[in-house]
Amino acid sequence: MEDKFVSERNLKFLLHEVLAAEDLSRLAHFQDHDRQDLDMMLNTALRISEEMLFPAFREMDQQTPKLDQGQVRVHPLAREFMRQSGEGGWIAATFSYDEGGLQIPTVLDTACQFVFMAANLAAAAYPGLTKGAAHLLLSYGSEELKQTYVPPMIAGEWQGTMALTEPQAGSSLSDLTVSAQPSEEGHYLISGQKIFISAGDHDGVDNVVHLMLARIKGAPAGVKGISLFVVPKLRPEGGGLLPNDLHTAGLFHKLGYRGCPIVQLSMGEAGDCRGWLLGKPNQGLSYMFQMMNEARISVGLQAAAVASGAYYASLKYALEREQGRPVESKDPNQPPVAIIRHPDVKRLLLFQRAVVEGSLALLMQVSLYADLAVHGGEQDKQRAAQLLDLLTPVAKSYPAEMGIASTSAGLQILGGYGYTEEFPLEQYFRDMRIHAIHEGTTGIQALDLLGRKVRLHGGRALEAFEQEVRSTMEAAEGVGELAGYAVDLGQALELLRRATTAKLSLMGQGRVAQALADACLYLEMFGLAAVAWQWLKQGVTAAQAVAKGITGGEAAFYQGKLATMRYFFHYELPKSQGLARRLLEDDALTVDLPPEYFAD
Amino acid sequence: MEDKFVSERNLKFLLHEVLAAEDLSRLAHFQDHDRQDLDMMLNTALRISEEMLFPAFREMDQQTPKLDQGQVRVHPLAREFMRQSGEGGWIAATFSYDEGGLQIPTVLDTACQFVFMAANLAAAAYPGLTKGAAHLLLSYGSEELKQTYVPPMIAGEWQGTMALTEPQAGSSLSDLTVSAQPSEEGHYLISGQKIFISAGDHDGVDNVVHLMLARIKGAPAGVKGISLFVVPKLRPEGGGLLPNDLHTAGLFHKLGYRGCPIVQLSMGEAGDCRGWLLGKPNQGLSYMFQMMNEARISVGLQAAAVASGAYYASLKYALEREQGRPVESKDPNQPPVAIIRHPDVKRLLLFQRAVVEGSLALLMQVSLYADLAVHGGEQDKQRAAQLLDLLTPVAKSYPAEMGIASTSAGLQILGGYGYTEEFPLEQYFRDMRIHAIHEGTTGIQALDLLGRKVRLHGGRALEAFEQEVRSTMEAAEGVGELAGYAVDLGQALELLRRATTAKLSLMGQGRVAQALADACLYLEMFGLAAVAWQWLKQGVTAAQAVAKGITGGEAAFYQGKLATMRYFFHYELPKSQGLARRLLEDDALTVDLPPEYFAD
Repeated sequence: MEDKFVSERNLKFLLHEVLAAEDLSRLAHFQDHDRQDLDMMLNTALRISEEMLFPAFREMDQQTPKLDQGQVRVHPLAREFMRQSGEGGWIAATFSYDEGGLQIPTVLDTACQFVFMAANLAAAAYPGLTKGAAHLLLSYGSEELKQTYVPPMIAGEWQGTMALTEPQAGSSLSDLTVSAQPSEEGHYLISGQKIFISAGDHDGVDNVVHLMLARIKGAPAGVKGISLFVVPKLRPEGGGLLPNDLHTAGLFHKLGYRGCPIVQLSMGEAGDCRGWLLGKPNQGLSYMFQMMNEARISVGLQAAAVASGAYYASLKYALEREQGRPVESKDPNQPPVAIIRHPDVKRLLLFQRAVVEGSLALLMQVSLYADLAVHGGEQDKQRAAQLLDLLTPVAKSYPAEMGIASTSAGLQILGGYGYTEEFPLEQYFRDMRIHAIHEGTTGIQALDLLGRKVRLHGGRALEAFEQEVRSTMEAAEGVGELAGYAVDLGQALELLRRATTAKLSLMGQGRVAQALADACLYLEMFGLAAVAWQWLKQGVTAAQAVAKGITGGEAAFYQGKLATMRYFFHYELPKSQGLARRLLEDDALTVDLPPEYFAD
Repeated sequence: MEDKFVSERNLKFLLHEVLAAEDLSRLAHFQDHDRQDLDMMLNTALRISEEMLFPAFREMDQQTPKLDQGQVRVHPLAREFMRQSGEGGWIAATFSYDEGGLQIPTVLDTACQFVFMAANLAAAAYPGLTKGAAHLLLSYGSEELKQTYVPPMIAGEWQGTMALTEPQAGSSLSDLTVSAQPSEEGHYLISGQKIFISAGDHDGVDNVVHLMLARIKGAPAGVKGISLFVVPKLRPEGGGLLPNDLHTAGLFHKLGYRGCPIVQLSMGEAGDCRGWLLGKPNQGLSYMFQMMNEARISVGLQAAAVASGAYYASLKYALEREQGRPVESKDPNQPPVAIIRHPDVKRLLLFQRAVVEGSLALLMQVSLYADLAVHGGEQDKQRAAQLLDLLTPVAKSYPAEMGIASTSAGLQILGGYGYTEEFPLEQYFRDMRIHAIHEGTTGIQALDLLGRKVRLHGGRALEAFEQEVRSTMEAAEGVGELAGYAVDLGQALELLRRATTAKLSLMGQGRVAQALADACLYLEMFGLAAVAWQWLKQGVTAAQAVAKGITGGEAAFYQGKLATMRYFFHYELPKSQGLARRLLEDDALTVDLPPEYFAD
């Protein structure tokens, strides 16, 4: 088997056979993008990834960013890929023509980004972050700000970032303290510190543009007093770029994701760090949430992509490594077999594949909702927006959490070799661990889901989700062996509904802490149901293809899909039962427990 | 909170209150060791760990071993701690007086080793490996071999190792090819390669003694043709030490466990690597299994110890880091609270603590069986040996697998900081990942448990285990709130029995591959039942102490125990239900699946 990090066949299966993405070309906004056009773009992403990104995957981990006299120096691929992303139109791909973009559907962009990320997580982050920041500028910036900042960003010449976190606040955005003092010239003077800023400084670009949350002097306490600013490293002035009193105060050394620098920034040490307000004062958090929701889906995609790279590395090893004999014929005079012949190795591989392809299917599904929410017909729009809203924490967290377990399973397949730097599994294992943390930890996603999303619009988003699942169940009922799996999915959906009702009832009684204490378990259960739905949906498509009597490699592909679906229903979905057991209890263990009980 | 890596209070709780280890002093072999004596030794281990091992924990990870002109160079603590372990009698602590030991009970030795390992996994490995090798020499070596090798080993001057794995064979010991050619002088000429040899070469000792598996020329194929040899790096000859044609061919660079070198060895490149047969020809594997079983329990202990270090680092952070407010009173004008006040953080801490203390309890329980199996009364001996045999794969794998999840949870508590090298969680996360791999992967342990152990002695070991669990259930039934947990444990035991019967029935039908395909799930379910048993046992002791009306810090300790027990029963044990769902199916997915289905 050649080195591989994604399955082109699977991406096209999801794009065309499961989601029928080419149907989007019926919508005015996407009319230029027929199936051939979508495939061409995906093929280009694959080629760039194979030729440029994947070969530097290990090297970027080893040659980590350095802080050298206040300037972060990174691997030359950062500059090379930023330029390529600008020239090829990748950064602005989903933007409209008048914004300098290509009006590509998000669902296709998701497929292409997945390829880049799977080939080289760190390299893909630079243009990815820039795109998010540019999109925010386009959404809320004045004409002047847009004209100044967006063109060099989408050309890949300037880096964009998202600067939220502060040392004292962490996940608690209401405690942000970076301050903004209005000046008479219209800009604000920014001062304070930000931490954990991805790509927050590097020498692969000519400037760095931070989309930064700060508090205007006198603003209300908490999240209601947060505003959004553009704060560049170098400020455009008189046709040139001047230092903006924004310094890199530190570079974090990290477990993984090492090819992309994460920095600490210090603003206004000399009292002259200038920022420009985006949109209205004190509305910063709601603006930032647009970018954050995109970023959360992007983090889910990164996790699925790392899991994909790990899966193909494990599969290659399992196909090539000969060791041991089948348990039923252990004759030592017979030659050993490839370890993929051992059922336990197949189980581990199926687990990896179920996580990778189940996560990707869910992420492409929500990306399709993102397209419909903005460009769909009037009827579709609202429903798609609600589904996107509801599923965003799930599409972020399921891949992030299960990706940790699935890369660990992949490492296990290689045994002792998996623990060494001779094989890439140890890097995938390290790279994976960030996704459950950044852009909102799993705990934050869980509170968002159970504390906000399931109650939004009077619970209509959740109802819409249940309808989507049921329509897949109905399709499956007509397809021979799938009927039983439709029943299993129905039971999982019923457990989820019961858990939801139980928790909402606690909230109704004002027992909010108790209602939310096990939000992470609820999120996990929701993830199992959502991914089971995506697996059944893929199963229906595959079973229909098999029924047509396809043979050869294509038949093996569809049978592999069906086997992985079966794996998910037999090994993963039953975990809902243990979760339901807890979620349906009314027991306040973690709420009532006094911290003193942790002494000793 | 001061820096901490183990709980002295918990160790004494397990040793004295739960296991009543001082009762061992009624046995002739242990008569010199009363409670005071046991405590003195444990206190010494704690002091050495605090003063010598823990301060170098991070440094040994950063200053990794180097291969320099064929010699591995390691951190100076390796030499220092080997000497200390020799002088303090730690290496030979459990050996009999006439073997140069202290006749310490294994259960105490386990507690002390846990302390060393939690303080510094890598440093503790050097004497730990030496002890295992010395024990094997004492068990099967000739007088001459014992007198030559054991004294410098237990003095900490020579390193002992266990040299099994070969590049082409991995877990498949029947494919070992290192060869041994008899010579006329009585020794054998060894040639071939070994890989993944922990502490296989370093400059912290004056010699390295490998207990090595090899195949005598003409021996039968498979495991029946494997013999055990002593193969030193330098051979004692004429009062000096001569090179033995044994070379370090490579040093592995690893994800974690970096302070201890893992090497590749090459024997007999010049045709003069001499080895001495231990015991009889072709009996090597059964001899090695004595050491391997000890080593497996030791690996479980290492995993529990790393999880312990991680737990206390997370707990310290959670107590000191202030961030956010309770969900029911989010007033941003109120100061933030320590994150340990958030229920989700408490849940993560309880998970860590449940894994650490549940694993340690099980490991100390099997260590007590190890003492009774050798030195107990006639009635106890056989039963204890069977329980030890049965539980060894569980006591190795539960800590190894759940330790990955629990250190990951610990890292999560620190958020972004957990992912950086500023805090030790990232190291614990890396160090932890080895334990599910070495000394037999989790897959190998699962085959050992389901394929051999539950059937041994006509199933009597499993019956003895069920009796032990039931006697704890009976004790719990008399203790107020614990009665319900006894019922839960009974149900888990019943599920385990049903799964066992189902799998043994498949074996009886000759469907061995199908019976063993989900052995890892069976092992996981067994681990949940075994650790739930240990938690209920601790719960009974704690509830009895509380009932006596204890107050203050001691009361908080017992209440913390009870809370952690409740956590285990509410959050962990219910996972048995999902596992049972799969284990009770007769579905051959992973057996039948052809590798071709993984194409694409």
